[in-house]
Amino acid sequence: MDRGLFITFEGIDGCGKSTQFEMLKDYLASNGEDFIVVREPGGTVIGEKIRELLLNKKNDSMKPLTELFLFEAARAQITEEVIRPALERGTTVLCDRFFDSTYAYQGFARKLGTDTASTLNYLATGGLEPDITFFIDIPVKVALDRRGIRGEADDRMEALGASFQEDVRKGYLEAASRYPRIRVIDGCDTPENVFEKVKKYYEGAK
Amino acid sequence: MDRGLFITFEGIDGCGKSTQFEMLKDYLASNGEDFIVVREPGGTVIGEKIRELLLNKKNDSMKPLTELFLFEAARAQITEEVIRPALERGTTVLCDRFFDSTYAYQGFARKLGTDTASTLNYLATGGLEPDITFFIDIPVKVALDRRGIRGEADDRMEALGASFQEDVRKGYLEAASRYPRIRVIDGCDTPENVFEKVKKYYEGAK
Repeated sequence: MDRGLFITFEGIDGCGKSTQFEMLKDYLASNGEDFIVVREPGGTVIGEKIRELLLNKKNDSMKPLTELFLFEAARAQITEEVIRPALERGTTVLCDRFFDSTYAYQGFARKLGTDTASTLNYLATGGLEPDITFFIDIPVKVALDRRGIRGEADDRMEALGASFQEDVRKGYLEAASRYPRIRVIDGCDTPENVFEKVKKYYEGAK
Repeated sequence: MDRGLFITFEGIDGCGKSTQFEMLKDYLASNGEDFIVVREPGGTVIGEKIRELLLNKKNDSMKPLTELFLFEAARAQITEEVIRPALERGTTVLCDRFFDSTYAYQGFARKLGTDTASTLNYLATGGLEPDITFFIDIPVKVALDRRGIRGEADDRMEALGASFQEDVRKGYLEAASRYPRIRVIDGCDTPENVFEKVKKYYEGAK
């Protein structure tokens, strides 16, 4: 039996990644594909508890390094408990954020070092990598305007400012230049047009 | 101003480390020393939440690697928020367990690798090391007999069996052969006699 396909979605908040994630999910369902959807951080009983720690706005005394290790803890758990077993039984896994978020947010934007982030990412996943990663790229201003419509920041990570988001975007672009599995997709177009590209890459990787 | 002295206590559960910790604390207090006491994991608002996750017996689905990253997360927080600032203002820090626990428990006994544990320990602390570490060493059988008097295991870590504790002890002895700052002290003697040795090493390091 073939291993399942491991697909991750990345991007700054407000880039439209969650919409694309839902559209691919619906597409797979309508095609009768065997798949599961997970989110990071979280996706396991223990991971959801770590997620709560990470995103709760009350935890504003959290140090960047603590944040980095907590993301890796949640990742280690979901990889071993959910993702790897699903892939091994031939199931496709769609994941909303994975370790490229750590590269861009903690490694690059928090300035902990992208090599440190990559080392810990490798350790946390035991070397497992996505087959294809969609980085939905939009300018920070567009993302902020979209979020403006949605109202105030939902969590501790979203509450960071525009210059932080600029750095995150740069971090993603650096990751994309380093890892060919990352497909940079212009997120400024309509959701339907963006999804045409997602679908094309997905069909090519299948 | 001199940097404060950083002193840690290590050992398997039931070794008498907490008694020695209290005795040194009382000794420092009676000498009018400037010191603080902390415990790992925990010791900060965020660290105590991580501690709860780590020690709650309900979290029995936790993977060893998740556990490793959670310990490092708590360590990163307490090092940056409490330990380093205290040492820099000249205060002595007594810590009940520190990163040698990760070496012995996760690296050696959980078989995640002592080099991996050392790498993460270094990252989590930014290279900060204890000046002196007391490893209170007793045979596992003696420790289990002592704990037998106290009743059943208090937490998820203590609930592990005798052969696991044997491995933890081996891990500590390996660490002690690698790091000269670790003083191996026979914990089978009376608390008073054990403390005479602790006190002697403390006075020598001051």
